[in-house]
Amino acid sequence: MFAIIVYDINVDRVAKILKISRKYFNWVQNSVFEGEITEAKLEKYKIEVKKIINTEEDSIIIYTFRDMKYSHRETLGKDKGGDNIFL
Amino acid sequence: MFAIIVYDINVDRVAKILKISRKYFNWVQNSVFEGEITEAKLEKYKIEVKKIINTEEDSIIIYTFRDMKYSHRETLGKDKGGDNIFL
Repeated sequence: MFAIIVYDINVDRVAKILKISRKYFNWVQNSVFEGEITEAKLEKYKIEVKKIINTEEDSIIIYTFRDMKYSHRETLGKDKGGDNIFL
Repeated sequence: MFAIIVYDINVDRVAKILKISRKYFNWVQNSVFEGEITEAKLEKYKIEVKKIINTEEDSIIIYTFRDMKYSHRETLGKDKGGDNIFL
């Protein structure tokens, strides 16, 4: 499946979350990642980040999609992305 | 169609972008919005925000989807969202 990850993490923990996210996904923009991933790997990702985040302060949104055939991504303004592999 | 908006905007302009985004979408988390929207309204949104953003500094990512039937959203940590109307 395909996943889009958007996070809002306290500066004290953001570097760790960034590092973990890069192992599983492609970096799109500051706090946005995306990529194809298996359900098993996504579970692993969740376990890793849950160990780091403070549930009172931090937030990670995970969108998952079975089919990205009818989807599109557009960037207005500066393309801050690292890895650009979207469909 | 369904759209997910993620933005990274300089603090000088973020309030304006937030205000415009709220007219068209539901607020999910700090800089994330989503919602059903027509192509015509999305074009209007783009025109409005393009007038505000500094293309050297700011970035708005717009994901659009024809079909959200096989999609899912999950939040780890704090649910910072305002309007929660996801499928």
